[in-house]
Amino acid sequence: MNTYINNLNWRYATKKFDTTKKVSNENLDILLEATTLSASSFGLQPYQILVVENAEIREQLKPAAWGQSQITDASHLIIIANQTNFGDELVDDYLSNVSETRGIPTEALKGYADFMKSKLTPLTKEEKAKWTAKQAYIALGNLLSAAADLKIDTCPMEGFEPDKFNAILGLNDKGLNAVVIVPVGYRSNEDETQHYKKVRKSKENLITHI
Amino acid sequence: MNTYINNLNWRYATKKFDTTKKVSNENLDILLEATTLSASSFGLQPYQILVVENAEIREQLKPAAWGQSQITDASHLIIIANQTNFGDELVDDYLSNVSETRGIPTEALKGYADFMKSKLTPLTKEEKAKWTAKQAYIALGNLLSAAADLKIDTCPMEGFEPDKFNAILGLNDKGLNAVVIVPVGYRSNEDETQHYKKVRKSKENLITHI
Repeated sequence: MNTYINNLNWRYATKKFDTTKKVSNENLDILLEATTLSASSFGLQPYQILVVENAEIREQLKPAAWGQSQITDASHLIIIANQTNFGDELVDDYLSNVSETRGIPTEALKGYADFMKSKLTPLTKEEKAKWTAKQAYIALGNLLSAAADLKIDTCPMEGFEPDKFNAILGLNDKGLNAVVIVPVGYRSNEDETQHYKKVRKSKENLITHI
Repeated sequence: MNTYINNLNWRYATKKFDTTKKVSNENLDILLEATTLSASSFGLQPYQILVVENAEIREQLKPAAWGQSQITDASHLIIIANQTNFGDELVDDYLSNVSETRGIPTEALKGYADFMKSKLTPLTKEEKAKWTAKQAYIALGNLLSAAADLKIDTCPMEGFEPDKFNAILGLNDKGLNAVVIVPVGYRSNEDETQHYKKVRKSKENLITHI
Protein backbone atom coordinates (compact mmCIF):
# COMPACT_ATOMS: atom_id res chain seq x y z
CA MET A 1 0.00 0.00 0.00
CA ASN A 2 1.19 3.52 -0.79
CA THR A 3 2.44 5.37 2.33
CA TYR A 4 0.78 8.66 1.38
CA ILE A 5 -2.59 6.87 1.12
CA ASN A 6 -1.94 5.05 4.39
CA ASN A 7 -1.30 8.37 6.11
CA LEU A 8 -4.52 9.85 4.76
CA ASN A 9 -6.43 6.81 5.94
CA TRP A 10 -4.79 7.17 9.36
CA ARG A 11 -5.87 10.78 9.73
CA TYR A 12 -9.34 11.82 10.89
CA ALA A 13 -10.93 14.91 12.39
CA THR A 14 -9.71 14.45 15.95
CA LYS A 15 -12.45 15.09 18.48
CA LYS A 16 -10.39 14.61 21.64
CA PHE A 17 -6.71 15.44 21.94
CA ASP A 18 -4.26 14.05 24.48
CA THR A 19 -3.54 17.06 26.69
CA THR A 20 -0.22 15.62 27.85
CA LYS A 21 1.42 15.36 24.43
CA LYS A 22 3.10 18.28 22.69
CA VAL A 23 4.23 18.54 19.10
CA SER A 24 8.03 18.96 19.21
CA ASN A 25 9.56 22.17 17.90
CA GLU A 26 11.28 20.12 15.22
CA ASN A 27 8.02 18.63 13.95
CA LEU A 28 6.22 21.95 14.22
CA ASP A 29 8.94 23.50 12.06
CA ILE A 30 8.49 20.79 9.41
CA LEU A 31 4.72 21.26 9.48
CA LEU A 32 5.01 25.02 9.04
CA GLU A 33 7.68 24.65 6.38
CA ALA A 34 5.36 22.32 4.43
CA THR A 35 2.52 24.81 4.77
CA THR A 36 4.79 27.62 3.59
CA LEU A 37 5.59 25.59 0.49
CA SER A 38 1.91 25.39 -0.53
CA ALA A 39 1.04 26.53 -4.02
CA SER A 40 -1.04 29.69 -4.40
CA SER A 41 -2.34 31.76 -7.28
CA PHE A 42 0.61 33.68 -8.80
CA GLY A 43 2.57 32.44 -5.76
CA LEU A 44 1.21 35.37 -3.76
CA GLN A 45 0.32 33.47 -0.53
CA PRO A 46 -2.32 36.08 0.41
CA TYR A 47 -2.74 34.90 4.00
CA GLN A 48 -1.04 34.66 7.36
CA ILE A 49 -0.49 31.68 9.64
CA LEU A 50 -0.95 32.10 13.37
CA VAL A 51 0.32 29.42 15.72
CA VAL A 52 -1.29 29.83 19.11
CA GLU A 53 0.27 27.98 22.01
CA ASN A 54 -0.62 30.52 24.70
CA ALA A 55 -3.17 28.92 27.07
CA GLU A 56 -4.90 32.16 28.08
CA ILE A 57 -5.54 33.26 24.53
CA ARG A 58 -6.90 29.81 23.71
CA GLU A 59 -9.25 30.02 26.71
CA GLN A 60 -10.50 33.33 25.30
CA LEU A 61 -10.98 31.84 21.84
CA LYS A 62 -12.75 28.69 23.01
CA PRO A 63 -16.23 30.21 23.63
CA ALA A 64 -16.03 31.70 20.11
CA ALA A 65 -15.68 28.13 18.81
CA TRP A 66 -18.76 26.77 20.59
CA GLY A 67 -16.60 25.63 23.49
CA GLN A 68 -15.02 22.84 21.49
CA SER A 69 -12.36 21.19 23.65
CA GLN A 70 -9.82 20.81 20.85
CA ILE A 71 -9.13 24.55 20.99
CA THR A 72 -7.49 24.28 24.39
CA ASP A 73 -6.60 20.56 24.53
CA ALA A 74 -4.52 20.33 21.36
CA SER A 75 -0.80 20.95 21.43
CA HIS A 76 -1.11 24.04 19.23
CA LEU A 77 -3.92 25.90 17.51
CA ILE A 78 -3.13 26.94 13.96
CA ILE A 79 -5.22 29.73 12.47
CA ILE A 80 -5.12 30.55 8.77
CA ALA A 81 -6.17 34.15 8.16
CA ASN A 82 -6.77 35.32 4.61
CA GLN A 83 -6.17 38.88 3.47
CA THR A 84 -9.65 40.32 3.08
CA ASN A 85 -8.49 43.33 1.19
CA PHE A 86 -5.22 44.25 -0.42
CA GLY A 87 -3.73 46.78 -2.76
CA ASP A 88 -0.78 46.81 -5.11
CA GLU A 89 1.59 46.06 -2.22
CA LEU A 90 0.60 42.37 -2.41
CA VAL A 91 2.14 42.14 -5.87
CA ASP A 92 4.99 44.57 -5.14
CA ASP A 93 6.11 42.71 -2.01
CA TYR A 94 5.99 39.41 -3.89
CA LEU A 95 8.07 40.76 -6.75
CA SER A 96 10.66 42.23 -4.37
CA ASN A 97 10.95 38.71 -3.01
CA VAL A 98 11.25 37.23 -6.54
CA SER A 99 13.86 39.84 -7.37
CA GLU A 100 15.89 39.08 -4.26
CA THR A 101 15.51 35.27 -4.41
CA ARG A 102 16.30 34.94 -8.09
CA GLY A 103 18.62 37.90 -8.50
CA ILE A 104 16.47 39.61 -11.13
CA PRO A 105 16.22 43.41 -11.21
CA THR A 106 12.70 44.58 -10.26
CA GLU A 107 12.56 46.64 -13.48
CA ALA A 108 12.68 43.38 -15.44
CA LEU A 109 9.59 42.18 -13.58
CA LYS A 110 7.48 45.25 -14.31
CA GLY A 111 5.54 43.62 -17.12
CA TYR A 112 4.63 40.70 -14.90
CA ALA A 113 3.71 43.06 -12.07
CA ASP A 114 1.40 45.01 -14.37
CA PHE A 115 -0.21 41.78 -15.58
CA MET A 116 -0.94 40.56 -12.06
CA LYS A 117 -2.23 43.96 -10.99
CA SER A 118 -4.52 44.08 -14.03
CA LYS A 119 -6.12 40.83 -12.79
CA LEU A 120 -6.30 41.73 -9.11
CA THR A 121 -6.96 45.47 -8.90
CA PRO A 122 -10.42 45.32 -10.56
CA LEU A 123 -11.70 42.78 -8.02
CA THR A 124 -14.25 44.03 -5.51
CA LYS A 125 -13.41 43.69 -1.82
CA GLU A 126 -15.70 40.66 -1.64
CA GLU A 127 -14.09 39.02 -4.66
CA LYS A 128 -10.66 39.60 -3.16
CA ALA A 129 -11.66 37.96 0.11
CA LYS A 130 -13.21 35.01 -1.75
CA TRP A 131 -10.08 34.52 -3.83
CA THR A 132 -7.67 34.75 -0.89
CA ALA A 133 -9.85 32.35 1.13
CA LYS A 134 -9.46 29.76 -1.63
CA GLN A 135 -5.67 30.16 -1.58
CA ALA A 136 -5.75 29.68 2.19
CA TYR A 137 -7.60 26.40 1.68
CA ILE A 138 -4.84 25.06 -0.59
CA ALA A 139 -2.52 25.62 2.37
CA LEU A 140 -5.07 23.92 4.61
CA GLY A 141 -5.18 20.83 2.38
CA ASN A 142 -1.42 20.64 2.38
CA LEU A 143 -1.17 21.26 6.13
CA LEU A 144 -3.52 18.36 6.88
CA SER A 145 -1.57 15.98 4.63
CA ALA A 146 1.80 17.13 5.96
CA ALA A 147 0.57 16.59 9.52
CA ALA A 148 -0.63 13.07 8.62
CA ASP A 149 2.82 12.36 7.19
CA LEU A 150 4.31 13.30 10.58
CA LYS A 151 1.59 11.32 12.39
CA ILE A 152 0.36 14.55 13.91
CA ASP A 153 -3.38 14.74 14.44
CA THR A 154 -5.50 17.62 13.25
CA CYS A 155 -9.09 18.81 13.35
CA PRO A 156 -9.88 21.38 10.66
CA MET A 157 -12.75 23.57 11.86
CA GLU A 158 -15.09 26.05 10.25
CA GLY A 159 -17.35 25.98 13.30
CA PHE A 160 -16.20 29.17 14.99
CA GLU A 161 -17.07 32.86 14.96
CA PRO A 162 -14.52 34.63 12.76
CA ASP A 163 -15.53 38.10 14.01
CA LYS A 164 -14.74 37.17 17.59
CA PHE A 165 -11.51 35.43 16.61
CA ASN A 166 -10.49 38.49 14.60
CA ALA A 167 -11.21 40.78 17.54
CA ILE A 168 -9.33 38.65 20.09
CA LEU A 169 -6.34 38.22 17.79
CA GLY A 170 -6.31 41.82 16.54
CA LEU A 171 -6.68 40.72 12.93
CA ASN A 172 -9.13 43.38 11.70
CA ASP A 173 -6.57 46.17 11.79
CA LYS A 174 -4.28 44.07 9.65
CA GLY A 175 -6.90 43.39 6.96
CA LEU A 176 -6.97 39.73 7.96
CA ASN A 177 -9.80 37.29 8.69
CA ALA A 178 -9.57 33.94 10.48
CA VAL A 179 -10.91 31.72 7.69
CA VAL A 180 -10.22 28.28 9.11
CA ILE A 181 -8.66 26.92 12.29
CA VAL A 182 -6.76 23.70 12.90
CA PRO A 183 -5.95 22.33 16.35
CA VAL A 184 -2.90 20.07 15.98
CA GLY A 185 -1.51 17.53 18.40
CA TYR A 186 -2.06 13.89 19.29
CA ARG A 187 -5.30 11.96 19.55
CA SER A 188 -6.47 10.79 22.96
CA ASN A 189 -6.89 7.05 23.41
CA GLU A 190 -10.37 7.91 24.65
CA ASP A 191 -11.45 9.41 21.33
CA GLU A 192 -13.80 6.72 20.09
CA THR A 193 -14.22 8.45 16.72
CA GLN A 194 -10.71 7.37 15.69
CA HIS A 195 -12.12 3.87 15.26
CA TYR A 196 -14.99 4.95 13.00
CA LYS A 197 -14.72 3.72 9.45
CA LYS A 198 -13.84 6.55 7.07
CA VAL A 199 -16.73 7.71 4.90
CA ARG A 200 -15.95 8.93 1.40
CA LYS A 201 -17.86 9.09 -1.87
CA SER A 202 -17.28 6.06 -4.07
CA LYS A 203 -15.14 6.55 -7.17
CA GLU A 204 -18.33 6.26 -9.23
CA ASN A 205 -19.95 9.09 -7.31
CA LEU A 206 -16.96 11.41 -7.28
CA ILE A 207 -14.88 10.87 -10.39
CA THR A 208 -15.74 11.02 -14.09
CA HIS A 209 -13.26 9.94 -16.74
CA ILE A 210 -13.60 11.70 -20.08
CA MET B 1 15.85 16.34 5.12
CA ASN B 2 12.21 15.38 5.44
CA THR B 3 10.89 13.60 2.33
CA TYR B 4 7.56 15.43 2.33
CA ILE B 5 9.43 18.78 2.32
CA ASN B 6 11.77 17.53 -0.40
CA ASN B 7 8.79 16.61 -2.55
CA LEU B 8 7.24 20.04 -2.10
CA ASN B 9 10.52 21.68 -3.02
CA TRP B 10 10.71 19.44 -6.09
CA ARG B 11 7.26 20.49 -7.30
CA TYR B 12 6.61 23.68 -9.25
CA ALA B 13 3.89 25.00 -11.53
CA THR B 14 4.94 23.16 -14.68
CA LYS B 15 4.88 25.40 -17.72
CA LYS B 16 5.83 22.78 -20.33
CA PHE B 17 4.91 19.11 -20.12
CA ASP B 18 6.62 16.22 -21.88
CA THR B 19 4.02 15.13 -24.43
CA THR B 20 5.50 11.64 -24.70
CA LYS B 21 5.06 10.65 -21.05
CA LYS B 22 1.81 9.35 -19.61
CA VAL B 23 0.88 8.89 -15.97
CA SER B 24 0.32 5.16 -15.48
CA ASN B 25 -3.13 3.93 -14.54
CA GLU B 26 -1.68 2.70 -11.27
CA ASN B 27 -0.30 6.13 -10.34
CA LEU B 28 -3.44 7.88 -11.53
CA ASP B 29 -5.46 5.61 -9.24
CA ILE B 30 -3.26 6.50 -6.27
CA LEU B 31 -3.54 10.21 -7.09
CA LEU B 32 -7.32 10.05 -7.31
CA GLU B 33 -7.55 7.91 -4.19
CA ALA B 34 -5.51 10.51 -2.30
CA THR B 35 -7.78 13.27 -3.59
CA THR B 36 -10.84 11.29 -2.56
CA LEU B 37 -9.43 11.05 0.95
CA SER B 38 -9.26 14.84 1.32
CA ALA B 39 -10.98 16.35 4.32
CA SER B 40 -14.06 18.51 3.74
CA SER B 41 -16.55 20.33 5.90
CA PHE B 42 -18.84 17.74 7.57
CA GLY B 43 -17.16 15.23 5.20
CA LEU B 44 -19.63 16.23 2.48
CA GLN B 45 -17.16 16.50 -0.44
CA PRO B 46 -19.42 18.95 -2.31
CA TYR B 47 -17.62 18.69 -5.63
CA GLN B 48 -16.85 16.40 -8.54
CA ILE B 49 -13.52 15.41 -10.09
CA LEU B 50 -13.26 15.17 -13.87
CA VAL B 51 -10.26 13.47 -15.41
CA VAL B 52 -9.99 14.44 -19.06
CA GLU B 53 -7.71 12.36 -21.24
CA ASN B 54 -9.68 12.78 -24.48
CA ALA B 55 -7.59 14.83 -26.92
CA GLU B 56 -10.52 16.37 -28.81
CA ILE B 57 -12.19 17.67 -25.69
CA ARG B 58 -8.91 19.13 -24.52
CA GLU B 59 -8.47 20.89 -27.86
CA GLN B 60 -11.92 22.39 -27.34
CA LEU B 61 -11.04 23.49 -23.80
CA LYS B 62 -7.67 25.00 -24.68
CA PRO B 63 -8.89 28.32 -26.17
CA ALA B 64 -11.00 28.77 -23.02
CA ALA B 65 -7.73 28.62 -21.04
CA TRP B 66 -5.94 31.34 -23.03
CA GLY B 67 -4.40 28.67 -25.25
CA GLN B 68 -2.07 27.44 -22.52
CA SER B 69 -0.20 24.41 -23.83
CA GLN B 70 -0.43 22.43 -20.59
CA ILE B 71 -4.11 21.76 -21.29
CA THR B 72 -3.30 19.52 -24.24
CA ASP B 73 0.33 18.58 -23.55
CA ALA B 74 -0.10 17.11 -20.07
CA SER B 75 -0.85 13.45 -19.58
CA HIS B 76 -4.28 14.18 -18.07
CA LEU B 77 -6.28 17.28 -17.25
CA ILE B 78 -7.98 17.15 -13.87
CA ILE B 79 -10.90 19.51 -13.31
CA ILE B 80 -12.37 20.11 -9.88
CA ALA B 81 -15.97 21.28 -10.13
CA ASN B 82 -17.73 22.54 -7.03
CA GLN B 83 -21.47 22.18 -6.47
CA THR B 84 -22.79 25.69 -6.99
CA ASN B 85 -26.14 24.91 -5.51
CA PHE B 86 -27.48 22.02 -3.55
CA GLY B 87 -30.45 21.01 -1.48
CA ASP B 88 -31.03 18.54 1.32
CA GLU B 89 -29.88 15.69 -0.91
CA LEU B 90 -26.25 16.65 -0.23
CA VAL B 91 -26.70 15.77 3.44
CA ASP B 92 -29.08 12.87 2.79
CA ASP B 93 -26.73 11.17 0.32
CA TYR B 94 -23.84 11.60 2.72
CA LEU B 95 -25.77 10.10 5.60
CA SER B 96 -26.89 7.12 3.49
CA ASN B 97 -23.19 6.57 2.89
CA VAL B 98 -22.39 6.90 6.62
CA SER B 99 -25.21 4.50 7.40
CA GLU B 100 -23.99 1.92 4.91
CA THR B 101 -20.26 2.31 5.67
CA ARG B 102 -20.62 2.19 9.44
CA GLY B 103 -23.72 0.00 9.72
CA ILE B 104 -25.76 2.62 11.55
CA PRO B 105 -29.53 2.90 10.87
CA THR B 106 -30.36 6.21 9.11
CA GLU B 107 -32.93 6.95 11.83
CA ALA B 108 -30.09 7.16 14.35
CA LEU B 109 -28.45 9.85 12.22
CA LYS B 110 -31.50 12.09 11.97
CA GLY B 111 -30.33 14.51 14.66
CA TYR B 112 -27.02 14.97 12.88
CA ALA B 113 -28.81 15.37 9.54
CA ASP B 114 -31.01 18.09 10.99
CA PHE B 115 -27.99 19.86 12.49
CA MET B 116 -26.14 19.92 9.17
CA LYS B 117 -29.22 21.03 7.26
CA SER B 118 -29.80 23.84 9.79
CA LYS B 119 -26.32 25.14 8.90
CA LEU B 120 -26.52 24.67 5.13
CA THR B 121 -30.14 25.31 4.13
CA PRO B 122 -30.13 29.01 5.14
CA LEU B 123 -27.13 29.79 2.92
CA THR B 124 -27.78 31.84 -0.20
CA LYS B 125 -26.83 30.32 -3.54
CA GLU B 126 -23.72 32.51 -3.58
CA GLU B 127 -22.71 31.48 -0.06
CA LYS B 128 -23.17 27.83 -1.00
CA ALA B 129 -20.92 28.21 -4.03
CA LYS B 130 -18.29 30.04 -1.97
CA TRP B 131 -18.32 27.32 0.69
CA THR B 132 -18.11 24.43 -1.77
CA ALA B 133 -15.30 26.18 -3.66
CA LYS B 134 -13.28 26.28 -0.46
CA GLN B 135 -13.82 22.56 0.10
CA ALA B 136 -12.66 21.92 -3.46
CA TYR B 137 -9.45 23.81 -2.70
CA ILE B 138 -8.66 21.50 0.22
CA ALA B 139 -8.79 18.67 -2.31
CA LEU B 140 -6.60 20.75 -4.63
CA GLY B 141 -3.95 21.24 -1.93
CA ASN B 142 -3.93 17.54 -1.21
CA LEU B 143 -3.88 16.60 -4.91
CA LEU B 144 -0.79 18.75 -5.52
CA SER B 145 1.06 17.24 -2.56
CA ALA B 146 0.03 13.69 -3.46
CA ALA B 147 1.25 14.23 -7.01
CA ALA B 148 4.59 15.54 -5.72
CA ASP B 149 4.88 12.41 -3.58
CA LEU B 150 4.50 10.33 -6.77
CA LYS B 151 6.90 12.65 -8.63
CA ILE B 152 4.06 13.61 -10.92
CA ASP B 153 4.12 17.19 -12.13
CA THR B 154 1.17 19.54 -11.90
CA CYS B 155 0.18 23.06 -12.84
CA PRO B 156 -2.81 24.35 -10.87
CA MET B 157 -4.62 26.99 -12.94
CA GLU B 158 -7.25 29.58 -12.26
CA GLY B 159 -6.55 31.26 -15.60
CA PHE B 160 -9.42 29.84 -17.62
CA GLU B 161 -13.02 30.75 -18.42
CA PRO B 162 -15.25 28.68 -16.16
CA ASP B 163 -18.39 29.45 -18.19
CA LYS B 164 -16.88 28.01 -21.35
CA PHE B 165 -15.48 25.00 -19.50
CA ASN B 166 -18.88 24.39 -17.94
CA ALA B 167 -20.60 24.59 -21.32
CA ILE B 168 -18.13 22.25 -23.06
CA LEU B 169 -18.23 19.73 -20.22
CA GLY B 170 -22.00 19.97 -19.66
CA LEU B 171 -21.54 20.99 -16.04
CA ASN B 172 -24.27 23.63 -15.78
CA ASP B 173 -27.10 21.11 -15.93
CA LYS B 174 -25.52 19.25 -13.09
CA GLY B 175 -25.23 22.31 -10.83
CA LEU B 176 -21.46 22.17 -11.12
CA ASN B 177 -18.81 24.79 -11.87
CA ALA B 178 -15.20 24.21 -12.95
CA VAL B 179 -13.48 26.01 -10.07
CA VAL B 180 -9.87 25.04 -10.69
CA ILE B 181 -8.02 22.90 -13.24
CA VAL B 182 -4.82 20.89 -12.90
CA PRO B 183 -2.89 19.46 -15.84
CA VAL B 184 -0.89 16.49 -14.53
CA GLY B 185 2.00 14.64 -16.15
CA TYR B 186 5.74 15.01 -16.43
CA ARG B 187 7.85 18.15 -16.92
CA SER B 188 9.64 18.64 -20.21
CA ASN B 189 13.43 18.93 -20.03
CA GLU B 190 12.94 22.13 -22.01
CA ASP B 191 10.93 23.81 -19.28
CA GLU B 192 13.46 26.32 -17.99
CA THR B 193 11.17 27.38 -15.14
CA GLN B 194 11.90 24.09 -13.32
CA HIS B 195 15.32 25.54 -12.50
CA TYR B 196 13.98 28.77 -11.03
CA LYS B 197 14.54 29.16 -7.31
CA LYS B 198 11.30 28.74 -5.38
CA VAL B 199 9.90 32.00 -4.01
CA ARG B 200 8.04 31.90 -0.71
CA LYS B 201 7.38 34.36 2.08
CA SER B 202 9.93 34.17 4.87
CA LYS B 203 8.81 32.65 8.16
CA GLU B 204 8.86 36.15 9.62
CA ASN B 205 6.50 37.42 6.95
CA LEU B 206 4.09 34.49 7.05
CA ILE B 207 3.98 33.01 10.53
CA THR B 208 3.22 34.54 13.92
CA HIS B 209 3.70 32.59 17.11
CA ILE B 210 1.39 33.55 19.97
